[in-house]
Amino acid sequence: MTQKILILPGDGIGPEITAQASRILAACQACGLDVEVEEGLLGGAAYDAHGEPLPAETLEKAKAARAILLGAVGGPKWDKLEDLAKRPEKGLLGVRKQLGLFGNLRPAITYPQLAAASSLKPELVAGLDIMIVRELTGGIYFGQPRGIEERNGERVGFNTYVYSESEIERIGRVAFEMAQKRGKKLCSVDKANVLEVTILWREVMERLAPEYPDVELSHMYVDNAAMQLVRAPKQFDVVVTGNMFGDILSDAAAMLTGSIGMLPSASLNEGGQGMYEPCHGSAPDIAGQGIANPLATILSVAMMLRYSLDAPLLAERIETAVGKVLDEGLRTADIAAEGTRTVSTAEMGDAVLAAF
Amino acid sequence: MTQKILILPGDGIGPEITAQASRILAACQACGLDVEVEEGLLGGAAYDAHGEPLPAETLEKAKAARAILLGAVGGPKWDKLEDLAKRPEKGLLGVRKQLGLFGNLRPAITYPQLAAASSLKPELVAGLDIMIVRELTGGIYFGQPRGIEERNGERVGFNTYVYSESEIERIGRVAFEMAQKRGKKLCSVDKANVLEVTILWREVMERLAPEYPDVELSHMYVDNAAMQLVRAPKQFDVVVTGNMFGDILSDAAAMLTGSIGMLPSASLNEGGQGMYEPCHGSAPDIAGQGIANPLATILSVAMMLRYSLDAPLLAERIETAVGKVLDEGLRTADIAAEGTRTVSTAEMGDAVLAAF
Ligand SMILES: CC(C)[C@H](C(=O)O)[C@@H](O)C(=O)O
Ligand SMILES: CC(C)[C@H](C(=O)O)[C@@H](O)C(=O)O
Repeated sequence: MTQKILILPGDGIGPEITAQASRILAACQACGLDVEVEEGLLGGAAYDAHGEPLPAETLEKAKAARAILLGAVGGPKWDKLEDLAKRPEKGLLGVRKQLGLFGNLRPAITYPQLAAASSLKPELVAGLDIMIVRELTGGIYFGQPRGIEERNGERVGFNTYVYSESEIERIGRVAFEMAQKRGKKLCSVDKANVLEVTILWREVMERLAPEYPDVELSHMYVDNAAMQLVRAPKQFDVVVTGNMFGDILSDAAAMLTGSIGMLPSASLNEGGQGMYEPCHGSAPDIAGQGIANPLATILSVAMMLRYSLDAPLLAERIETAVGKVLDEGLRTADIAAEGTRTVSTAEMGDAVLAAF
Repeated sequence: MTQKILILPGDGIGPEITAQASRILAACQACGLDVEVEEGLLGGAAYDAHGEPLPAETLEKAKAARAILLGAVGGPKWDKLEDLAKRPEKGLLGVRKQLGLFGNLRPAITYPQLAAASSLKPELVAGLDIMIVRELTGGIYFGQPRGIEERNGERVGFNTYVYSESEIERIGRVAFEMAQKRGKKLCSVDKANVLEVTILWREVMERLAPEYPDVELSHMYVDNAAMQLVRAPKQFDVVVTGNMFGDILSDAAAMLTGSIGMLPSASLNEGGQGMYEPCHGSAPDIAGQGIANPLATILSVAMMLRYSLDAPLLAERIETAVGKVLDEGLRTADIAAEGTRTVSTAEMGDAVLAAF
């Protein structure tokens, strides 16, 4: 049966990078991948067109799709919108929540060809391969009550950090299973010395552990995790944590690989429906210049093929093609270095297609 | 008038490092510093002795003191305590809250002699000098309601992230004033694209800005701040943020200097009463071995002299002495490197005293 793919270019460099990823997807179709691809509006682009960051039409298409490819959302143009509900980010959060995409997989990998681009010493990042499993539809991002209100004659802002046992268990299982398929080490990150919600988090992880006897579970406070990532990132295999801590730690981990322009991510629900997007953001400062790096988005297509479309061979072909292009010395500006050739977004797309 | 100083050795390496700092404090007394020094129990040590991490007697002494020197609290021995209120960390949080120590100053400095110890490339950290101003008595650490309770047939953990305008304004002023005394750049870190409480945070910072026209205020989302610290830390001068984000970012920043064994911190209230402590933790793994680095604690005494005791000349003498000792090539194990001489905690104390 033909499966549906929805492409959401979003804002900033989003349209440029998804355009290149679409070409690869078309190449996969030419090789027999039975999918139907359509586009939709999300984020600032949707707000500009319809006054809503997540229009009903986009949500319908998203629900009907087996997989979504997202560019990125947000930019200074919409940062001043008084109504938080209208901001581009709320469109993204809406898709995550409405589709129940609770399992966010954020690999932090150092590409051997790019190890020198890391701000860390090469020996600390060479061969780095961490998988951060972030809970994506709960925690403080979605907790109620929330708002800004008058109390005792002044305004007070408040949000609620909340997790139920079942929410923790669900993401815990994703992480344990991921660890089983990888290096069999799982580090759960919390702040259980201060926050009750993360005491429950730690307790549930402990309760699950005996069901995965081949996985070694450890716990780390979030402040220490931030330090350990900077100090010796290779000590980690799989890391599992909540929405907010996951946001911070996965970005730090991605950046320290030096390969942030290369890192894809997946957000999955229980049925394997997924949204795929680069780890990096919408980079409004370089939007429209044709110089953005499309590789993280192209590699997001590979992740999609593997996790939602059951097409691992095509996924591998894409990944191999990307490796070849790097070996040939082609680089977009963000990863340019001495002795390499700087190419545009479209030229990078051309090169991957040629190597595919 | 004789001022009171309270030393709280705490847990792990705490007693070893405060012992060396006490010797420096005694040397300052010998040079005319008019203080009276006493000791008290806090954290796990207090729990073991009195069943409470912050005994009433300690709190009394703390309130009566002009300044407190803390070693560190916590350790695996107490991590399993079911009752969060009994954990060592709660003793520390209690002192902060009861004394109103809302202004936490966490410098992240690279000592020129130690730049090679950083996991970052030397050119990225050489000369690094950031001041992180962390709000310390509010936010999610203290927000109500909090707890773990049964809802819809399962347990749910919850905490509240809350700030009032006056709390934000108070820490904002500390940060703006700090920026005025330094490089005149202030970066406020929030997650205003998702969390209402940080929308209010950003708004208050904006409102204060015109009163400090010589300071350039910018805003950054916390995930981006974690990335920028790793990528190019020297872009920052003063950073201001809430309790939780400050915990994570200040630890990451401290670690990336390579000088974490060297970094002091101050926690101040409106009257200039303060608690001073090293940025690093209680390091239970090396406790009792006489190998811990006492320099961050010794430098905390210098901070105390400057911020609470109005004795900047003595503060400088301590800092100069520490610099000399490093120049002589003396290092404790944590900062040892080729061509340096590894010394014990007490030998390091001896050396600083000799150079004082
Ligand atoms: C855009 C923003 C709402 C989002 C988040 O914080 O989840 C982004 O930072 C991410 O990590 O995907
Ligand atoms: C021990 C702990 C409660 C404390 C905190 O999180 O504030 C520590 O990590 C710190 O940063 O001083």
